[in-house]
Amino acid sequence: MYKNFTQTKAFSGLRRCAQRPYDLTRKGALFEDDRLQKFVCRSPLVNLHYGTQRIDHHVLQGLSDMSRELELVEQFKALRRGAVANRIEGVESENRQVLHTACRDLFSALPCHPEATASAAGQLDKLASFLEKLDSGVIVNHRQQRFTSLVHIGIGGSDLGPRAVYEGLKCYGKEGRTVRFIANVDPDDAVAVLSQVDLSTTLVNIVSKSGTTLETLTNEEIVRAALKKAGLNPADHCIAVTGEGSRMDNSGDYLETFHMYEYIGGRYSTCSMVGAASLGFFLGMEQLKQFLEGAALLDEMAEEERLEQNIPLLMALIGVWNHNFLGCRSLAVLPYSQAMHRFPAHLQQCDMESNGKSLQRNGQPVASTTGPIVWGEPGTNGQHAFYQLLHQGTEIVPVEFIGFRRSQSGLDQTVENTTSQEKLLANLFAQMVALAAGKESDNPNRVFPGNRPSSLLLAQRLTPKTMGALLALYEAKIIFQGFVWNINSFDQEGVQLGKALATRFIAEISKRESDPDSLENYFLKQL
Amino acid sequence: MYKNFTQTKAFSGLRRCAQRPYDLTRKGALFEDDRLQKFVCRSPLVNLHYGTQRIDHHVLQGLSDMSRELELVEQFKALRRGAVANRIEGVESENRQVLHTACRDLFSALPCHPEATASAAGQLDKLASFLEKLDSGVIVNHRQQRFTSLVHIGIGGSDLGPRAVYEGLKCYGKEGRTVRFIANVDPDDAVAVLSQVDLSTTLVNIVSKSGTTLETLTNEEIVRAALKKAGLNPADHCIAVTGEGSRMDNSGDYLETFHMYEYIGGRYSTCSMVGAASLGFFLGMEQLKQFLEGAALLDEMAEEERLEQNIPLLMALIGVWNHNFLGCRSLAVLPYSQAMHRFPAHLQQCDMESNGKSLQRNGQPVASTTGPIVWGEPGTNGQHAFYQLLHQGTEIVPVEFIGFRRSQSGLDQTVENTTSQEKLLANLFAQMVALAAGKESDNPNRVFPGNRPSSLLLAQRLTPKTMGALLALYEAKIIFQGFVWNINSFDQEGVQLGKALATRFIAEISKRESDPDSLENYFLKQL
Repeated sequence: MYKNFTQTKAFSGLRRCAQRPYDLTRKGALFEDDRLQKFVCRSPLVNLHYGTQRIDHHVLQGLSDMSRELELVEQFKALRRGAVANRIEGVESENRQVLHTACRDLFSALPCHPEATASAAGQLDKLASFLEKLDSGVIVNHRQQRFTSLVHIGIGGSDLGPRAVYEGLKCYGKEGRTVRFIANVDPDDAVAVLSQVDLSTTLVNIVSKSGTTLETLTNEEIVRAALKKAGLNPADHCIAVTGEGSRMDNSGDYLETFHMYEYIGGRYSTCSMVGAASLGFFLGMEQLKQFLEGAALLDEMAEEERLEQNIPLLMALIGVWNHNFLGCRSLAVLPYSQAMHRFPAHLQQCDMESNGKSLQRNGQPVASTTGPIVWGEPGTNGQHAFYQLLHQGTEIVPVEFIGFRRSQSGLDQTVENTTSQEKLLANLFAQMVALAAGKESDNPNRVFPGNRPSSLLLAQRLTPKTMGALLALYEAKIIFQGFVWNINSFDQEGVQLGKALATRFIAEISKRESDPDSLENYFLKQL
Repeated sequence: MYKNFTQTKAFSGLRRCAQRPYDLTRKGALFEDDRLQKFVCRSPLVNLHYGTQRIDHHVLQGLSDMSRELELVEQFKALRRGAVANRIEGVESENRQVLHTACRDLFSALPCHPEATASAAGQLDKLASFLEKLDSGVIVNHRQQRFTSLVHIGIGGSDLGPRAVYEGLKCYGKEGRTVRFIANVDPDDAVAVLSQVDLSTTLVNIVSKSGTTLETLTNEEIVRAALKKAGLNPADHCIAVTGEGSRMDNSGDYLETFHMYEYIGGRYSTCSMVGAASLGFFLGMEQLKQFLEGAALLDEMAEEERLEQNIPLLMALIGVWNHNFLGCRSLAVLPYSQAMHRFPAHLQQCDMESNGKSLQRNGQPVASTTGPIVWGEPGTNGQHAFYQLLHQGTEIVPVEFIGFRRSQSGLDQTVENTTSQEKLLANLFAQMVALAAGKESDNPNRVFPGNRPSSLLLAQRLTPKTMGALLALYEAKIIFQGFVWNINSFDQEGVQLGKALATRFIAEISKRESDPDSLENYFLKQL
């Protein structure tokens, strides 16, 4: 039923274009046809500047034709309306809908999937009422004190997205409230976090869709033991976010339980209760809703048919251009904002777990390489670290820059006639030009080959709404790329073997004896 | 004078081996010839397990021959003894010695470069005396209170290494002492850190070799202004680490000044005063010396001629095998230790800034691809994030795992008959086996192709000494790889163009007017 991009009519034309991609190093190349002005997609929350990519109007037309042939926007629309998009034909697969977008489809009179949105709204109402009881002092600790701190326990999708958003919005928190995260089964992770909090005024939010995640259950046990040791009743401190009917869905053990649903994958779950519960505690309902609204606006944009008006689709197709036509196998996401320091780690998960696949949705091997290696650190820090390779290395790494016109705090200082925020952005723009244009030199060690493509997502300020928009933008981008490669971006069978083997190893350790000829034995002897 | 690896006699044999590399997925392949037992390099501080690499004795012999032909160990010995290794023949280059190893060559009666080690020892003595004055209350704030907190201001090499080590050794700090870091020119970075400290009991350590780093000078100004605003005298709170004679080397402005030397590159400077001053404040001199001693032990090991006894050399050559012979262009470093969470970011800098190069030391273009893209996050977290791609993606990513037999705190809890530390290691071992051996299945979506190579660095516990060893191990590994590719791993000309353009952009902004036809103007209009 679905095609991959190599089966489209547009493919061969794009391949021809890729033999001589636009040369950004040619004198005047960045100014030609006002490309920097024209290759911009504007939207109320964020603009995409892509004039420093190795594309021209032919390539854009080819990508647009490919998009239409593959019905990318139609597929996205169908997904939001409840299509069983998590599926591989002809083999056993999860066969689920993909409805994370429903969690934020709260701002339109006609939500795309009314039932899923109603469930999400119901959970949000439950959260609002719970938070109201915290605010008004109806829910307090056994000494009648307010809860000021929250420990969020989850891993993977139940950790990286919520943590990236929390870090990004740390300066928007309600007075006196903090959130800390425990994810790793490494006991030192829990020890370090527990040493930082006063448990008596701490809520513990345990997040596991299945209710069976090894790390999360183990850390829950550790924190419950610490609560008991401190003379506290865990059921007065713990809340849960889990699937309906999971073994964690047990009201006796928790002060409150929130639900997430099977049709929301972990790495896409930040806007569900997985992120919303802890973020709501920290930001309050009003700002949480702004965050969701920003995400909803980008979901709307992703339904725009015209490529040049659809930022996630543009980024997806430019990504495919760089990856499959120009041969760049990794992608750096470089936010010029210290608050965004965990956003690349979230994207690393969302992208690599979604699209690090080798099987098409029709059960056949993929026709090309798929998901890139995604990595990144904030600028300007990275400039003093790995940018050497970006400029002069033998690998060409496309870059997605993220920038904000204004700082979050607004506090700044003018040193030598410019503010730090101005210096930050000047550096960002300088990097885009340097990567694209390069520089000649008589000294071969000072030659910059240039033609290293980048884009810039530029927003006004990192607010809850902008953060929601960036989150949803990348989710949609990743989903569009999955459609292009014709893979199922919503399962993760690739993590099962390691999990199964770990279970076997743990069972061996727990027996304290192991088959002398086994792999386990070899490794356990190292302990 | 120097060759690259493609010019060695061993090269063609290795190329032949690479056409049919060892098949880890064959039944019994992991047990054959006791490879898991034999492919281990043991040392007092850390062992390297490399039986899950796609190598056999032929490949090892070829790599060993290559190493001898290229005189890798001789080159490393020469470097420690003061060779001008930061150099490119026939063109203008830095022409400097590379003597970071001298900073820790303090434990032998005959240091390799006595003069550089004497300088380093002198700085350490100065530090010891400064710290003693802090401990004994000779240096206090204007209210006679002790300094308990330190803000470290630096970027790149003056940030990532010290920060990674601090995070790794956080649980070893002197009672009540904390260190925080400001790096980014993003004003929100300084605002966030300053909101967390009581400036009156805070030392500020400004670290810049040149004394001219834009970000660091700007952040110094911001922190000095904050100190003044709090009614404090900056000269009573600020210390500096800088090159002798730099514009920061001005005793009137600082409580104390420590020196670093031209022959120590930023990314290799963690063991110099760049890291030692802040780490010494936090850990105390005794533990700082253990850290240095661990590093010194690994420098010694890197001089071992026998490949199978030299961990950094083994890792370097196995890395070249995976990168240049098997075609894997990136490298994941995955520590199974939450405390090591910033170590991959440090390595990303150390490796990619050193070896992301396109020019040989003889001024000719490189003969092969050079430095890989290095990235990573702690396990088990990553298992729930990007491991899908590692197992089933279309890119093969070699992995360097790092593990510790015991947790740092020793605090742990038995849940279902195993401790968290046991679960952590069971997961690590399971991943090595899963990546190597793979798994067949009737369901094509559950097929694991295997043959994905990994190594394991296994140490007893993450202590100051182990941390020093791991740091030096990777430094030596990176340097060996530079020798193999015949590149200069010690300059960073690739960061200059971006810096120069940023200076131009900042100048334009500061004039508040710009040439309407300029690139600057285009970008500045976005602000």
